[in-house]
Order: sequence, then structure tokens, then C-alpha cells
Amino acid sequence: MAQLRIALAQTNPVVGDIAGNADMLVEWTRRAAERGAHLVVFPEMFLTGYPAEDLVLRSSFVEASITALSKTATRLADEGLGDLPVVVGYLDRADLAPRVGQPKGAPLDAVALLHEGRVVTKSAKHHLPNYGVFDEYRYFVRGDRLPIFRLHGVDVAVAVCEDLWQDGGPVSVVAEAGAGLLVVPNGSPYETNKDDVRLELCARRAREAGCALAYVNMVGGQDELVFDGDSLIVDASGELVARAPQFEEDLFVTDLELPEGTGELGESRHDAHDGTVITVERVLLSAAPVEPYEPEAPVVAERLDDLAEIYKALVLGVRDYVRKNGFQSVILGLSGGIDSALVATIAADAVGPERVHVVLMPSRYSSDHSITDAEELVRRQGVDSQVVPIADIVSAFEKEIELHGLAAENLQARVRGMLLMSLSNEHGHLVLTTGNKSELATGYSTLYGDSAGGFAPIKDVLKSVVWKLAEWRNAQPGQPPIPENSITKEPSAELRPDQRDTDSLPPYEVLDRLLRDYVERDMGRDELVAADHDPELVTQIIRLVDLAEYKRRQYPPGPKITPKNFGRDRRLPITTRWRERL
Amino acid sequence: MAQLRIALAQTNPVVGDIAGNADMLVEWTRRAAERGAHLVVFPEMFLTGYPAEDLVLRSSFVEASITALSKTATRLADEGLGDLPVVVGYLDRADLAPRVGQPKGAPLDAVALLHEGRVVTKSAKHHLPNYGVFDEYRYFVRGDRLPIFRLHGVDVAVAVCEDLWQDGGPVSVVAEAGAGLLVVPNGSPYETNKDDVRLELCARRAREAGCALAYVNMVGGQDELVFDGDSLIVDASGELVARAPQFEEDLFVTDLELPEGTGELGESRHDAHDGTVITVERVLLSAAPVEPYEPEAPVVAERLDDLAEIYKALVLGVRDYVRKNGFQSVILGLSGGIDSALVATIAADAVGPERVHVVLMPSRYSSDHSITDAEELVRRQGVDSQVVPIADIVSAFEKEIELHGLAAENLQARVRGMLLMSLSNEHGHLVLTTGNKSELATGYSTLYGDSAGGFAPIKDVLKSVVWKLAEWRNAQPGQPPIPENSITKEPSAELRPDQRDTDSLPPYEVLDRLLRDYVERDMGRDELVAADHDPELVTQIIRLVDLAEYKRRQYPPGPKITPKNFGRDRRLPITTRWRERL
Repeated sequence: MAQLRIALAQTNPVVGDIAGNADMLVEWTRRAAERGAHLVVFPEMFLTGYPAEDLVLRSSFVEASITALSKTATRLADEGLGDLPVVVGYLDRADLAPRVGQPKGAPLDAVALLHEGRVVTKSAKHHLPNYGVFDEYRYFVRGDRLPIFRLHGVDVAVAVCEDLWQDGGPVSVVAEAGAGLLVVPNGSPYETNKDDVRLELCARRAREAGCALAYVNMVGGQDELVFDGDSLIVDASGELVARAPQFEEDLFVTDLELPEGTGELGESRHDAHDGTVITVERVLLSAAPVEPYEPEAPVVAERLDDLAEIYKALVLGVRDYVRKNGFQSVILGLSGGIDSALVATIAADAVGPERVHVVLMPSRYSSDHSITDAEELVRRQGVDSQVVPIADIVSAFEKEIELHGLAAENLQARVRGMLLMSLSNEHGHLVLTTGNKSELATGYSTLYGDSAGGFAPIKDVLKSVVWKLAEWRNAQPGQPPIPENSITKEPSAELRPDQRDTDSLPPYEVLDRLLRDYVERDMGRDELVAADHDPELVTQIIRLVDLAEYKRRQYPPGPKITPKNFGRDRRLPITTRWRERL
Repeated sequence: MAQLRIALAQTNPVVGDIAGNADMLVEWTRRAAERGAHLVVFPEMFLTGYPAEDLVLRSSFVEASITALSKTATRLADEGLGDLPVVVGYLDRADLAPRVGQPKGAPLDAVALLHEGRVVTKSAKHHLPNYGVFDEYRYFVRGDRLPIFRLHGVDVAVAVCEDLWQDGGPVSVVAEAGAGLLVVPNGSPYETNKDDVRLELCARRAREAGCALAYVNMVGGQDELVFDGDSLIVDASGELVARAPQFEEDLFVTDLELPEGTGELGESRHDAHDGTVITVERVLLSAAPVEPYEPEAPVVAERLDDLAEIYKALVLGVRDYVRKNGFQSVILGLSGGIDSALVATIAADAVGPERVHVVLMPSRYSSDHSITDAEELVRRQGVDSQVVPIADIVSAFEKEIELHGLAAENLQARVRGMLLMSLSNEHGHLVLTTGNKSELATGYSTLYGDSAGGFAPIKDVLKSVVWKLAEWRNAQPGQPPIPENSITKEPSAELRPDQRDTDSLPPYEVLDRLLRDYVERDMGRDELVAADHDPELVTQIIRLVDLAEYKRRQYPPGPKITPKNFGRDRRLPITTRWRERL
């Protein structure tokens, strides 16, 4: 057996900021060296950030990634860090002739081993996820190599993210090729309860591969996704050895005792059990095990409970969206209700109350407690506030055009949206919207009104969870930030006299159970009724949800009539820092 | 040799409206029978409409398509049309075990042959386009069959759309298998000059297959795409025989003289030259050639010139967006400038002037000719108009919050956007926006202001083409609909005194040439300079375009934190008529 101290760099790269990410790589590698690590592993596509979407189809971006990789290898050596091997994800390209249906430039979701100033091995993700939030058949061609490097006597194999999730491919040949450790850089977005699935998967693959497995994930918000970290190590029997914290950057260092490698150096070809052949490339970095040393006790960070996970994901999502987009502050309307109260609290936790600006915009239909509850939140949290009554503006519109019913209700929401956007333009704040998933799914919101803004922190949180998160946050140490009355009072949009959400919607606990099954689990009508939902309610809510979806989708760009369309327009990442070199 | 009269049903299905599309199939088949056709061919996925996006991942939708197919076969027979074979695209599923990375339910972009009340053969698209506007790896698994049916002695093979565009697959085995005619249902969206490429491709594939080729394309606007029809037939040497009109529905009937089939009935397996094996299934409908008859002269519809093509695409896009979304009328702001003048004209051509409502919204900065030019257009076209001055509303806002510079300019655009949305809510009109591609690409527009609306007819038309289209339309027979002064005057947003577009942007002919290369051709900085663009201008415009793109993309939904996200939310077609059965 041989010892290795490995450092998993659970980091937060920025899509497009290749120079900044490279700096971060050097800085974290230095810290790993100071901790005495023998190997440091960064996440998937760390150097470019992930997901880089249509940026990977720009040849100048691919070129920039490849150049930065070799420059970073040199720089590590120049700065005295060359003897610490670094595994890092980056963007490369395959040398394939162009053909119809193949992504332009044949990009690779690649991973490299840097050592002694050189790029020692390169490989790329074999299985490309193309479901849910992933579209990787659009972006990448598949890799077909499994690098194994011998480090202080231990054979370390490298695979990428999805290669763990699917059968066959590089991971399936690790057992046959023989390795002491499999390291896997990941860009794996948070979903509720994904941590359990992830551990079970790593344990199973470790047993199949017959070796320990180190899973390193990125952390942080990037555009519409939040990565949760949760890097971990299991031994060859699938037992959990060490686990990094969730939602925090961490240089996660663990001492392992691993079998010495015996395989022959050089290349060999293996059936990958998925119709492809994988080339194993075994290289030598250092043959002799390190001098025996006293290992540190492995760390197993405590798991967060479900509400804490969701709350931390939301805070991190807001913080990184603000930071990565270069905003200094946020602004939102505060109604006294629970949704805006929770969003204000998340924002204050994310960027500090001094950078949160709230606007109270009472109308002729606002109740007294709307103002007093909002003022109470301002008092408790110390956020910046101002009051802008909307009655006179609404009257000015109504003098010019006659509006009734929903049109009149929408006008009020739109005046508020415009005030926030105007203040955003004037002062540079990012507008946060406060709509929750139950409202948005059923269309209980106004286009260009309460839905106008740059980031929607609780867009994917059902109303019943909004209440639970508010109670959870109030139960944390310190003064409860959210006024109790905002939590307990009956929900109302206050766009007409005595309006209540239940005028239009069923009680939220009933609605949310149905939305979970219809929207999230995608059940059809028959399945919903079989799952014990009230048939009449199913009819009503399917109609509402489909209509809302339909109306949201009625607001797209025009028809496509140019040779290449706005392809770039659709999929470029939002918080990219990469530009053509100016 | 044997004669066949084949009817290509260049039709306009509606995504999701399976019942309506099935009715259309029966109606057009009856018309084909009345014309004496021996075979009628409908476009790709005609029965469900195309592109159906994430609807294909709903099992109830797949089920509805399969059921409708067999019911339609029965119904054709019941209505006395059973002896006329029908080739039609529909949605089916493969019988595959679920696995990671495979679309849910393994959907197929399928095509069937209906005859004598039965579904005689089924096959599915082999090559799945996954670039540009297509994401079909997300939606489909590939087919691996090539049906060939003997009809009145002629062997007719069937392939689908993309199978023509890529090498290998079903089309590559036609020559070896032997056929007299290859029919290809398509859903091929319009792009400028695509008609030339399409003809060249069909000619090449016909020569490779050694048989005539009949290409049938759908027509009409569907969500963000416009299909142009342009169905065509080439003979075995690749010569054009007949060609249907562009942008119009047409039952396109052609008499062909084709070799008699000699291949053996039953199944055979063939190497498809792309790593797969295709099963050829040869079935008999009728062995004896038809009695000789006097063929009709084939029709070769005249091609439209480039500007006529674009104009027709825009009109059809608006007409179908309005119709398929169930709107009765449209509304837009008319400024007196060229963009809104062109959009009003397109709208009047699309839905009739009596269903076009224009609003003149002068501000304190509007010039006199803004009003008089707009009024002149109203007079010429007879659209409905009203005047709503915005000065008092803007003042009401400015009494509550202090705004300067761009924030003050944006406010005016937003007041106009809100007025249009309010009138839309009150009266049910669809709001058309009037921004062109040059403005939108460079960010010369206001979020929630002039960009607020349901459909953006000229969003993908560069400003220099806007002028050309206006001149082209004015040159058509009848009174020129667009006031000459709207075409000739200098462009201005009129959001501050004496503002001119050239205060912020280079002349449009210079800008548009650069946008074509940067946005549409995706050239990088070095390529642009090499293509003789002014280096300083390249720097300025890259910055503007990237910033505009970046700002547009700063307005997405929040982070994803639920198990399945809003996957459905992202990709459902807009103008669907399919709902869960209520």
C-alpha cells in the first residue's frame, strides 16, 4: 500500500473568465502545496467555467482555453508548483473533419493532467448528458480515452462527470485496466435530495471499478443553475471516507492509503461495453511511494437538512448572480406579504442588508398592514427603503385609456414594475422579482409587472415551501428577520378591494401537491386522478397551468429568416466574462 | 415503365391540434382522389405538427398520435378513400428499455403508409438534426428501417427530411435496394436562399439513389419558424421535373413515368455506411401498372426574388402566429418611422387592415412629421387608429421619482409599452413589437418598452433590409402603402431633443454589413478585420453586441432547485392546441 494526500478543489469558477479562473487555479494549487498535498483535482471545465453553452462553438474561445491550459502549466512550474500534479477540466477540440450534425469545431469537455510545466495527458468526457438542463450533444463530441497516471506508486485514473452516471465507457474499463484511485471532476447542479443519489452512485461505481473514487464538484451559482459542492471520497468497497461541505468553497484535503499500481505503462485498447473502444494511456509520474507519514483524520462534513439546503442554494444563487454579473446592489418591491419578505431576507443574507434597496409602493387597494409589515421588516433587517405611492400614476393612465377588470389590475402591477426598472436604470441596482412557483405555474402574475426584473430568486419554490423557508429562517439564531404577520396573514395580491388568492386558486397545500405531480413529475390527467387528486381540481389546474405556460410562451422573438438565425442569441451563458479580445 | 400520378400535400398543420390535422388529412386526401392521384404524401410529423418540442416527451401526447394514426386509416376507408395510399408523418415511440440519456419514452419522428383502412408500414427518421434551431437528440431516438412499397408496379421508398441532408442511413441504401421513386416528407424551415441549396441536394440524392425523388415540405408559421413549402420533384438524373409555389398551401399533383419494380418482397438488411444497419421492408400494394393515360404537363412554379421571399415569410409568420394562437386582431405603436410603418403594412397584409389597430403616442420630443407621417399611413391603409399622448403620464412618474439620461428615455418607451399591453388586455389584441435586428443586436431598444409584446415580426431583419422591403412593397401594384417620408427621413428614437440613431450607431449600411459577419456568420475579431471591416468599428460593435446580448440574457428565471426543474417550461411549443384531455 502507498499513501497519498489528495486535495479536491471545490471551487467557484466564472463562465468565460478564463484568466480569472487560471489565477484561481494557481492560487488554490499553492494552498494545496502548502497543505502538503500530492495531487490536486479541479472540477469539470474549470478553466472556462461551466456550462459555457454556445461559447464552446466559438473557435476563438476554444483557442483561448487551450492556450490558457499550457500557459497555466508553465506558470505553475515558474512559480515553484510544478511538482504538484494538477487535474483540471478545460475546453479542447477533437481533430475531426467537419460534418453535418457535428458541433462546429468538434469541442471536447476535456480534462488534463499538468505536471512539471507540461500538459502530460488529455482526455474528454465520453457520455454526454442531453436531458433536463443539459444539451451536450449540441456542444461536444465524445472522448474515448482513459488516462491513468502513476503517482508515488499509485495508479490514478481520470473520468468526467456523466461518465459516472451511465453504464459503459471509461469507468467500465477501470477494473480491467487496474487503478488504485479514480478521480472524477464534475459540474453537477444541485437538486433537492441529489446528495443521497450521488453518494449511492459513487459507492456503486467504486465497487465496479474496484478502487477508491474521489468526486470533486464545483460550487456556486452560474446563470440558472446552482452547484452545491458536496465533493466526496469513497473507498474501493463503496464506504464513505470523507465528504466536503455543501454550498461552500473548500480546499478539501484527505489522506488515503491505496494499493500500488502494477499495470504496464503505455497504451492498450479495451471494449467499453457500450459499442465503443476506450484507449487506456498509462503514464509514469513517480514510481516510489512517499515516505510513510501520519495521516490526518478524514473530514465528513455534516449534511444540511432539506430546508437549509434549499435556503443556502437560493442565497448562493442570488449572491453569485449579482457578483458574476457585476452588480453592486439589488432592488425589489416590498408588499408586506410573505414572498417579497422572503426574497428581501435571502437578498440581505446574500449581499448584505446595506446593498438591498426595497420600495414600498402602496395603491388605493393596499391594506394598512401591507405598509406596517413591510416597515417592520425594514426595521428588523436595516435594508434601505423608500415609499413611492402609485395612485397618481395609475390615475394618469386611466385619464388616457379606459380599463376594466384584469386590465386594470395588471396596470397597477406594471406601474410598480416600471418604477423598479426606472430606479434600476437610474442607480444600477439589479431588480429582483418576488414571484413563487405556484403563482408562476398557474399564471397568477402580470407580464411586465411583478414578473419584470433581472433575477427571480424563488421562481422555482412552491408557495408552501416559501412559508416553510420563512419559518426555518426565523428559527435560526439572532432576531427573526421576517415579521410574523407576513407569515401568518392570508395571501392577497391587493389589486382590487378585498382580493384573496383563494378567490382564484385552491388552498396552496392542495395546489402545491398537485403542481408537484403535474409540473415536476409530469404526470398526465389519468395518473393524477389515480394519485388521488380531486378530478375537478385536476381539470381546473391543468387548464390554468397549460394556459399560463401558453401565455408565457406567446412572447418569443419573431420568425427566423436569416441564414444562421440568432443561434448565439439563444444559448450564450448570461454571466460570462468572456468577450472577443478588444 | 409505369405511370403514377402523385400528390404532394404542401400543408400547414398546427402543433398539438391532432384532431384538426387529421381532419385536414382526410380533406386533402379526398381532394387528391378527386384529382385522380395514385399516391398522396404529407409532410414530416404532419399529424402532430412540427416542431412539437417537449410535447413529444409526454406519454399521453405520443399515445394520442398513435391512436389518431390508426383511427385516421380506418376513417379514410370508411369515407371511401381507402384505396388511395397515404404517406404521412406522425409521432410514434420505439420499444426500448428506459436508460440515462435516452429521451423519455423513446419517441420517434415517424412516418406511416396508410392503405385500405390499415397502417401498412411504419418507419422513422434516422438522422436527427441537432444544430441551429434543431435539438432532436433531446427528443427522438433514431429509426433504422427503409420501407419500399410497390404501387401499381412502381417501388416507392420512404425517408424523412434530415435523412436527405446527411450521408449514410436509409437514403444510402436505396440504390442497392432498388426503387423507382423516393418520397421524402419534410419540415424544413425557410432561410434566405435555402431553395437553391434544397434543389441541389435533392438532385444529388436522386442521382445517388438512382431514382426520382419527391420532396414534400410543410408551409406556414409555427412559433419562431416559418416553413416555405417549395416542394419539388426531380428525376433520376437530378433534373427538376416539377416545383410547387413558395409560402402557399398547395395540393401539388404531378404525373411521373417510372421504372417497374423488380425487387423481392420481404425484409433484407443493408450496411448504411454510417456504422448502422438498415432493414429494408418491401411490401406489395398493387403489382399491375395503371392503364396508360395522358399525363398533365408538370408545373414548375416561378421562384420569388429575395425580397419577395422575405416579405412573404414575414406576412405568413404574422398571419399564422395570430391565427394559431387564437387572436382576432393585432395592435402596435405607430411612430411615423420606417420600422413601425413596415410592421403595420405586414400586419395589414397578413390579417387585413380592419384587424390592425395602431396607436399614435406622441411625447414632448415627438416631431411634427411623426404624427403626420403616421396619419398618412392610416389614411392610405385604412387601419384603425387612436392617439394617446404620453406627456401627462410621464410627468406623473417624474413627480414620484427623479430620473436622468437613459433612465428618463427608457421611461417614455415603457409608458408606450404599458399602454399597448393595457389595450391588449382590455380588447384582446396581440401586441406586435416593431424593433429590427440591427437595433436589437446592438441593444438600441428598451426592455419592457418598445420590446414589450407578443410577436416581433422584423426582429430578424436588418435595418438596411427594412428599407428595401418598404421600397419593394411600395413598388407592388396598387397604392404604395407606406408614406415616402417614412422611408426617406433620418431615423430617430425621439426620446430626447434632436436625437438621431447616428448619435449612437454608425450608418446602417456599415453596421449591417458588420452584423451580418459577426452575428450571422459568427466571425471572430481577427476574421472581421481580415474581411475588411474598420478595426475601430469592429471593437465598438463587438462591445455593443456582446453587451446587448449579455443584458438581454440577464433576465432569465431563477436558479433551479427542484427535482425536475421547469424543463417543460422551456421548450413547449407556443402555438400548440394540444391539452391534456379535459
